Amino acid sequence: MKPIPSYSTFARIFTLGALLVLGVQAHAGDPLPSWNDGPAKQAIVAFVKATTDKASPRFVPPAERIATFDQDGTLWVEHPMYSQVMYILESVPALVKAKPELAKVPPYSTVLEILKGDHAAIAKLTMPDLEKLAAATLTGMSTDTFQAEAKAWLAKARDPRWKKPYTELTYLPMQEVLKYLHASGYKTYIVTGGGQDFVRVYSEATYGIPPEQVIGTAGATKYGYDQNGKPFLTKEPKLMLNDNNAGKPEGIHLMIGRRPVFSAGNSTGDQQMLEYTQAGDGARLAMLVLHDDAKREYAYGPAQGLPDTKVGTFTQALYDQAQKQGWTVISMKNDWKKIFAFE
Amino acid sequence: MKPIPSYSTFARIFTLGALLVLGVQAHAGDPLPSWNDGPAKQAIVAFVKATTDKASPRFVPPAERIATFDQDGTLWVEHPMYSQVMYILESVPALVKAKPELAKVPPYSTVLEILKGDHAAIAKLTMPDLEKLAAATLTGMSTDTFQAEAKAWLAKARDPRWKKPYTELTYLPMQEVLKYLHASGYKTYIVTGGGQDFVRVYSEATYGIPPEQVIGTAGATKYGYDQNGKPFLTKEPKLMLNDNNAGKPEGIHLMIGRRPVFSAGNSTGDQQMLEYTQAGDGARLAMLVLHDDAKREYAYGPAQGLPDTKVGTFTQALYDQAQKQGWTVISMKNDWKKIFAFE
Repeated sequence: MKPIPSYSTFARIFTLGALLVLGVQAHAGDPLPSWNDGPAKQAIVAFVKATTDKASPRFVPPAERIATFDQDGTLWVEHPMYSQVMYILESVPALVKAKPELAKVPPYSTVLEILKGDHAAIAKLTMPDLEKLAAATLTGMSTDTFQAEAKAWLAKARDPRWKKPYTELTYLPMQEVLKYLHASGYKTYIVTGGGQDFVRVYSEATYGIPPEQVIGTAGATKYGYDQNGKPFLTKEPKLMLNDNNAGKPEGIHLMIGRRPVFSAGNSTGDQQMLEYTQAGDGARLAMLVLHDDAKREYAYGPAQGLPDTKVGTFTQALYDQAQKQGWTVISMKNDWKKIFAFE
Repeated sequence: MKPIPSYSTFARIFTLGALLVLGVQAHAGDPLPSWNDGPAKQAIVAFVKATTDKASPRFVPPAERIATFDQDGTLWVEHPMYSQVMYILESVPALVKAKPELAKVPPYSTVLEILKGDHAAIAKLTMPDLEKLAAATLTGMSTDTFQAEAKAWLAKARDPRWKKPYTELTYLPMQEVLKYLHASGYKTYIVTGGGQDFVRVYSEATYGIPPEQVIGTAGATKYGYDQNGKPFLTKEPKLMLNDNNAGKPEGIHLMIGRRPVFSAGNSTGDQQMLEYTQAGDGARLAMLVLHDDAKREYAYGPAQGLPDTKVGTFTQALYDQAQKQGWTVISMKNDWKKIFAFE
């Protein structure tokens, strides 16, 4: 066989060439243009330089460059309510259409009130209510059907404040961190308390993160066959991984099997992931986004006297732990020059 | 900032350059030199060419190039007994040393008889016995301790026939397929009924497959802190994923979230993974290794009149299904020129 480079070799050369150019550009300019100069930006740049420089004592071999990011409140907006909860609520009318008797039964009736504009009614929903609604709207269908439904919703849904698709409400500074780490040989993962199947629907288009690098709260599926003998998976109402708090390092072990060297979060649900990341040897960077910008986004804590919240709680205890353990707290107000690409 | 290429850019150029050279070499020569020319080899080469050629109607975009491989009996020897079962049995003396009262209690006493040379005693072990032994030897310790113990065992353990480390008993023709697919832009995964944590200990060194691309039978872990406040994960005796039969496509959905386009297995435990792979649209290749070479390796089925076995059963029904669905059956005897690198 003559050594004629195949078409795919040419394609590879072209792709690698493009990567090189992009790589050089990323290094030539400022990799984090939406960040103000300050300790957070400096910490990220210093970490990337040290872990990718073979001469550095903090060098990390490429195979071990694992970076994990919480999603809600870390990569995109989570207030006034997590996008996936909006998906669950806005999926109720279709459920009621299929089973009209549900219209008068709580929690379905409560959701219909909320959707009619009675936003205060959301306070009536208890945790068991939300679990019931989640089971009704996220399970019982095939994985393919769920993907199609979630995709259709994402295309039409708009957030209440900016009237934009949720996938446009990602934080530009964090997108830059994802790209910078990726260009520096890091494998970037989302580690979210949100539904794994839900986030995987848009992670590649929104963050450049493929589905296999999304770890989230996951339910069991059940293998079966349709009437033509074609196999499919049904989403079951059975929790396999509750990817919050201690569930985050447990999920990282299950799905990656390596300890991350970089982790970013924004709430008490990320505490254990950051602890686990930092407990490894060598270079580590742990970061927390503090929502202290009521004007450009939202302000909530209750850390540092910010308003208290049930959605993305950042307690003073977590803030104190960050100070004590050397985690970097990112101030949206002071560290981010620009928050959204559409600004 | 002046556009000075950083050290890491040079490192990337060098690495990409090396990849290009390797890529060209892989395409220039025969990518599967340990395979005899025949339908199996032709099917693999035709599949790779069609799925990586942009002009082909069967082209698969790089992001979707997912290939999944069973391990025991597909990538390495599983007879007379799965390596991990040997690990479990050979871990019993250390258990008994720590708790001498176990020496007279079955199934521990039975294992001690087996290890003394009474191989027939292995038939006395029931499935509940094995589960008890697995819980005792694979759980209750930290993930770091387990990794260290499994690594130490793999370094000293020798298989009973070739007297080689188990990690040398991989099939050279399948190693070539792994490399060929990887060089062609495929992400190669192990999808094994074996323990995920166990296989991850050696997958990178043995197959070039990183831990995050190993899906296996997995137990829960529990996050906690040692007396110094350092976090660690304890392996719990609680099954999360039984990665066999229907558990294989379920595990693939959980850990990858995409349907593979290529799958290889060798037993009834792989049937559903192959069905699931083939049920997708476009190019697909599903393969089964048939152990029909008693001289160079082992012969077992009971398909095609081969001796029956409980370890890696390949039934006639599976063989018939392969014929009907167009899966490629690989004959070790006829398709493989060489089985082991050490031959």
